[in-house]
Amino acid sequence: MSNFQSSRFAGLTAYVPGEQPRDRRYIKLNTNESPYPPSEGVLKAAAEAARSLNLYCDPTALRLRRAAAEVYGVTEDMVLPVNGSDEILNLAFMAFCDRGTPVAYPETSYGFYPVLADLHGIIKREIPLKSDFSVDFHDYLGINCTVVIANPNAPTGMALGPDSVERIVEANPGNVVVIDEAYVDFGAESAVSLTKKYENLLVTRTFSKSHSLAGARLGFGIGDKGLIADLAAIKDSTNPYNVNAMTQMAGIAAFEDNGYYMENCRRVARTREDTAERLRELGFEVTPSKANFLFVRHPEISGGELYEKLREKNILVRHFSKKSIADYNRITVGAPDEMEALITAAGEILAGAGGKSDAKE
Amino acid sequence: MSNFQSSRFAGLTAYVPGEQPRDRRYIKLNTNESPYPPSEGVLKAAAEAARSLNLYCDPTALRLRRAAAEVYGVTEDMVLPVNGSDEILNLAFMAFCDRGTPVAYPETSYGFYPVLADLHGIIKREIPLKSDFSVDFHDYLGINCTVVIANPNAPTGMALGPDSVERIVEANPGNVVVIDEAYVDFGAESAVSLTKKYENLLVTRTFSKSHSLAGARLGFGIGDKGLIADLAAIKDSTNPYNVNAMTQMAGIAAFEDNGYYMENCRRVARTREDTAERLRELGFEVTPSKANFLFVRHPEISGGELYEKLREKNILVRHFSKKSIADYNRITVGAPDEMEALITAAGEILAGAGGKSDAKE
Repeated sequence: MSNFQSSRFAGLTAYVPGEQPRDRRYIKLNTNESPYPPSEGVLKAAAEAARSLNLYCDPTALRLRRAAAEVYGVTEDMVLPVNGSDEILNLAFMAFCDRGTPVAYPETSYGFYPVLADLHGIIKREIPLKSDFSVDFHDYLGINCTVVIANPNAPTGMALGPDSVERIVEANPGNVVVIDEAYVDFGAESAVSLTKKYENLLVTRTFSKSHSLAGARLGFGIGDKGLIADLAAIKDSTNPYNVNAMTQMAGIAAFEDNGYYMENCRRVARTREDTAERLRELGFEVTPSKANFLFVRHPEISGGELYEKLREKNILVRHFSKKSIADYNRITVGAPDEMEALITAAGEILAGAGGKSDAKE
Repeated sequence: MSNFQSSRFAGLTAYVPGEQPRDRRYIKLNTNESPYPPSEGVLKAAAEAARSLNLYCDPTALRLRRAAAEVYGVTEDMVLPVNGSDEILNLAFMAFCDRGTPVAYPETSYGFYPVLADLHGIIKREIPLKSDFSVDFHDYLGINCTVVIANPNAPTGMALGPDSVERIVEANPGNVVVIDEAYVDFGAESAVSLTKKYENLLVTRTFSKSHSLAGARLGFGIGDKGLIADLAAIKDSTNPYNVNAMTQMAGIAAFEDNGYYMENCRRVARTREDTAERLRELGFEVTPSKANFLFVRHPEISGGELYEKLREKNILVRHFSKKSIADYNRITVGAPDEMEALITAAGEILAGAGGKSDAKE
């Protein structure tokens, strides 16, 4: 921190994204990317857009909003495209929280929520999960806070059903409920259709996981046009041209190729179920994930040690130091051969751990 | 505004970017884009980056920072790449202004500064220009504010010399001075080398004008590593992966092709001087611009009327309704044939205006 930074950021702890190593070849199962490449249509659209980069992109992203509205079954004034879904979360925390309106979210969830709350000086209500890591929707009824719930939740992968989501939205008519559906396409049920019924529901989406566009930065806010107008006003006051021209065109092409991406999501879901079963056979506890990752622990090895030993074998997974989940690792569901390598490595590590453990006794 | 928006945004007036019409073919001289396309190297780099968009981009943009550091003659920890230079301005207003630290800037300048100040609840000190539209650096000495000066200034195009900039930086050791060099490559002198001497100087740059990348969204903050760390901490707390992979690679390629872009800037500067002379011959008053636009008025036609009549002739320029500059239009310097069309159209309009005026009398 320099001598010039505003004192309100004195205790600022930035979010630490998963490692993006450039120096060595890893099997990368740490940041929930898709193992499948973007479609040919996306490559063509991005390359074509590059030819006229000397011109500004459309700050209203009209064509992209139309494509999104068609796929999500809403109107174009109910969609705000953003530079990755972190941006829509930031806009929502700014627009709908303040000193008088705290934010409530599950105590174990996406680590970006507390970072945003602290940055903007918003009071946090962190609500514990149940002992099985599930979210109890009763905790969020009539709570007098802006509510943010990742559904499926991260890093557990566990999802609420649409009825539970609707109960939360209905029971907080004076507050915005944000449902962060970053992982919804891998098997959970979306609340998007409820945005037409409730003016206080904001659904956020990202193309980073389901649509193979993590590097392009594209997310969406979907909600009542009043909410979207509020968010757009802040977007236009901080970064009017937030989504670049190549990504706008890539996004339109990705919506056109939506079938390809939905099939990829189903492939990932199948790989997830196969991998979960194989890991359980190795003695792992595995939460019932509906996302493109698994959240696992093993009684014979600590989360930190498993992470390190996998890393030595060139496999990167995500370990969180937070005490309540330090026994666990979050493992992205990659391609089948990557998961095969993971299972082999985990088996070897467990055999070694058992051996060492015997030798010590 | 919905019922849910935080009351602190009750009076929010978002920045209104220049029109980006999609429906009709205009000669577009309203948003200061480059008339020259991106280089072949940029097109190749962007298309190549698109192939692995399923992976996240580097949130530290290390290779891009290295390329920038080399061209700007600084170290890589003195550079922060951003999603267009509006983003670095937003970060700087957040980091270096607050209720106790107002922001000071020229009363006539980039219209985004008051929007950012209002959004973040920062007190504004808007300092009038001199009667010839120049910035008087004496007004900014020991001012106890964060200082923001566009150099060259917009929409006048008039520039301060590096000695004047240094005087301002030196005279405000307790505050950050932001020099917004969006237009510097068209003929003004940069303050970048001073960032190695003063820890309170932040220079901002954009590739939207000089490097034919308006649609890619790429800007930079350049300053002491302490300032850059402050800005990066807020970036990482709001949007860690702020610059997408295609734009990072396009930016690296643009630095490699820097000679092409600098030659384009010189071409634009020559076209600007030719156009200014022709406009003066038509009776226009033209400020001595060092940017890629001209700021002009004519004694026989109002700024609003000229704007409308050029628009009828399919030429878009930028007119600001602000009273002190409502007589003027800001005209982007495009390709020579576009400026030829502008001069012809202006000549016709003036002939017509004279005619009409006679008829009415």
